[in-house]
Amino acid sequence: MNRMLKKLDRVFNPKSIDVVGASAIPAKVGNVVLKNFIDGGYSGKIYPVNPKYETLLGFRCYKTIKDTKDRIDCVIIATPAPTVPSIIKECGEMDAGGVVVLSGGFEEAGRKDLAEEIKRYANKYELPVIGPNCLGVYDTYTRVDSIFFPFYKMERPKPGAISFITQSGAVGSTVIDLAAYYGIGMAKFISYGNATVLDEGELLEYLEKDRQTKIIVLYLEGTKNGKTLLRTLKRVNQKKPIIVLKAGKYGKALEAAKSHTGNLAGDYMAYQAVFKQTKVTEAEDIDELFDFVKIFNQTLPKGNRIGVITNGGGLGVLTTDAIEKEGLQMAELSESTKSTLKGIMPAYGTISNPLDIIADATVELYEKSIETFMNDQKIDALIVVVLTQAPPIDERIIGVLTRASDDKRKPVAVIAVGGAYTQTYKKALESRGVPTYDSAQSAVKALKRFVNYAESR
Amino acid sequence: MNRMLKKLDRVFNPKSIDVVGASAIPAKVGNVVLKNFIDGGYSGKIYPVNPKYETLLGFRCYKTIKDTKDRIDCVIIATPAPTVPSIIKECGEMDAGGVVVLSGGFEEAGRKDLAEEIKRYANKYELPVIGPNCLGVYDTYTRVDSIFFPFYKMERPKPGAISFITQSGAVGSTVIDLAAYYGIGMAKFISYGNATVLDEGELLEYLEKDRQTKIIVLYLEGTKNGKTLLRTLKRVNQKKPIIVLKAGKYGKALEAAKSHTGNLAGDYMAYQAVFKQTKVTEAEDIDELFDFVKIFNQTLPKGNRIGVITNGGGLGVLTTDAIEKEGLQMAELSESTKSTLKGIMPAYGTISNPLDIIADATVELYEKSIETFMNDQKIDALIVVVLTQAPPIDERIIGVLTRASDDKRKPVAVIAVGGAYTQTYKKALESRGVPTYDSAQSAVKALKRFVNYAESR
Repeated sequence: MNRMLKKLDRVFNPKSIDVVGASAIPAKVGNVVLKNFIDGGYSGKIYPVNPKYETLLGFRCYKTIKDTKDRIDCVIIATPAPTVPSIIKECGEMDAGGVVVLSGGFEEAGRKDLAEEIKRYANKYELPVIGPNCLGVYDTYTRVDSIFFPFYKMERPKPGAISFITQSGAVGSTVIDLAAYYGIGMAKFISYGNATVLDEGELLEYLEKDRQTKIIVLYLEGTKNGKTLLRTLKRVNQKKPIIVLKAGKYGKALEAAKSHTGNLAGDYMAYQAVFKQTKVTEAEDIDELFDFVKIFNQTLPKGNRIGVITNGGGLGVLTTDAIEKEGLQMAELSESTKSTLKGIMPAYGTISNPLDIIADATVELYEKSIETFMNDQKIDALIVVVLTQAPPIDERIIGVLTRASDDKRKPVAVIAVGGAYTQTYKKALESRGVPTYDSAQSAVKALKRFVNYAESR
Repeated sequence: MNRMLKKLDRVFNPKSIDVVGASAIPAKVGNVVLKNFIDGGYSGKIYPVNPKYETLLGFRCYKTIKDTKDRIDCVIIATPAPTVPSIIKECGEMDAGGVVVLSGGFEEAGRKDLAEEIKRYANKYELPVIGPNCLGVYDTYTRVDSIFFPFYKMERPKPGAISFITQSGAVGSTVIDLAAYYGIGMAKFISYGNATVLDEGELLEYLEKDRQTKIIVLYLEGTKNGKTLLRTLKRVNQKKPIIVLKAGKYGKALEAAKSHTGNLAGDYMAYQAVFKQTKVTEAEDIDELFDFVKIFNQTLPKGNRIGVITNGGGLGVLTTDAIEKEGLQMAELSESTKSTLKGIMPAYGTISNPLDIIADATVELYEKSIETFMNDQKIDALIVVVLTQAPPIDERIIGVLTRASDDKRKPVAVIAVGGAYTQTYKKALESRGVPTYDSAQSAVKALKRFVNYAESR
């Protein structure tokens, strides 16, 4: 297996890519993928393969892979299922780096025989195969991109530290799209579909050693190799936090998951036990997954004592409610913090935690309060609530919050709730790596998971 | 009390408004509020009151209310706390319709004496007083608007069926802003602050009879009149659904709430008991509140059997998980539904619930599947998942989903998750009244509350 995973580097960093089933017809998978490589910033050689065409989008088109007469690093296949095994065999014979099979019509359509053929050739040639029945791969650094949704419908995220392994294409594309929208950086994306050759365990092992990947997200419906997965989750999570979204938990959902990728989702109780034992972080839905990922990019907290700063009283109360509900602790302010705050707070302000600096708080007062909380040894993490609608708040708050978030002393989460004006601030903050939340509940839930993870290390 | 509430109509439908403490200085409360009336679409007479000015923003400015020599309907006060009681007295003597006191510096600042004076005059003259220490009122129909956040920082929602009573200004402004952003219609907004004269119970009673209000949202920290509130919640909720967000639940949050409006938040257990007994719907945070409000605008469901249509397999699985987790039921498709679907689904599709119409589903297939589910007597509510990124989806889906949502046979919730492209669809749907959600969890949670409410009627 190790040799297979090593070869996978050639899929993500290819000198050449072959698109088998490349097409001239717009919106066809083989057309969108070819365009991805032409327009997306990929810098290696491009070989469209399809016996029907002489040229395609200005590139020479080849009848078979062999005809390219070049070293083959990354092969992307988008041809009908029955044609796939022989193409895989050809890739093996040519010592290709690896193959991504986008086509459906295998296990999930009752054609296990075709899947078995793929497996046989992959093993014979130690050829890493991703898929079939998937969206394939996306690498933000090298721009290898087999996602067959056009750019205008689905943005691509910028380079960053989060890698994502997903069994579902729909969930995968949604996550990619949201990451791009919020300006959250990603490293590698792998949609592995039926997991015929490489499964989630092996892909985790690959990302464990990937230098660009610091945080791993896994969307999982079911696995065939529970024991390996358990072992891998446990080991990798100690080095790089893993956030898991398990779908297909209960009766009907389990059935739906089965018909979806042909894998049995299995008993959720067993999965829960695995997650608990391996100490990975479990998210319940896509929005939660994002909430969690954002905070995991911050400095690990040393404890569970939270300091809250707010310019909206009610929002401070809601945040405090959430903190106490989730079992985190409201920090007791130290004496020196209290006396510092007395010097900077307006006369009518109350010195307490949550610190309500009131709707006429200036950006400077935010900056000073944050610095005071950073210096307080009895505070392990900060939540800063900003009602951007308040008159004195202007764009300088973005700089203040970015510096706070970049401060390695403590993790910081920001809560900013509101309409178009607030959304502008929110996007600016998120694209600068500041974990920004729509509600107290979501911020606090994420922080709680992060505190738990820090404790488990 | 009844006479006080009757007069309140004059606050929301005034022929004249007086802004006491009107100011020429930008960003001052008395300046922003005056501008609201000039620029916001209000059509009655406007009287700025402030002895410092002869004219203000082109209007004649008066030394006192009495100097206006006109009938006084709605008086908005933004002067320092110590000056407020005598202005209230003047309003009483002139038989004003009602008063909104924006100024702070009363109970919450240890000046209970000033609050007592206000109460005394209000009772003597049967004068409805909202506040003090609040954002006041906003009426989307008459454009009475005392919210002192400028339009460019905080949008105002369009006319609609939802009214909102809030103890917190910050939470109130956030909700207004979000409603505007999503295109959700509102009727009346009342931020009542310290509740010195009118409290949440009386305001509920007022909205009970308000013709424009169909759904009531209440943000509550604490009440002084628990028994009245219980009785009112119970009665009103049977006619118009009430969604409550209770803040200040636990230890530290309770203390924070107290310092915030000077009201004791009280034991959360007692509140929970009240909510249970009165069968109102409780939300845990602002985002949940919105999730719930959206679906309550739909037709009441006749049961808890849910039909799910999706073009993304994984998203269908996540939705099914959420349905089973929340204790709703996945509907069993009737025989006639199955045979209809056989005629419209592509050959490789599976006929089941969730119905996965696959990523190449057309808008027409959505339309036909929705119609089939609408006709199935064994389905009580629909969840339609749309991966808008999928190539065949175009803007016609907005019409299809709007017609489904307007269909009075069953409630419909839409799940659409994604970046900029999806957000455009989402906003278009929401402004057409289609309940649209960011995640399976949030859609299903909302639908569950709506099913519960339907059962309680």
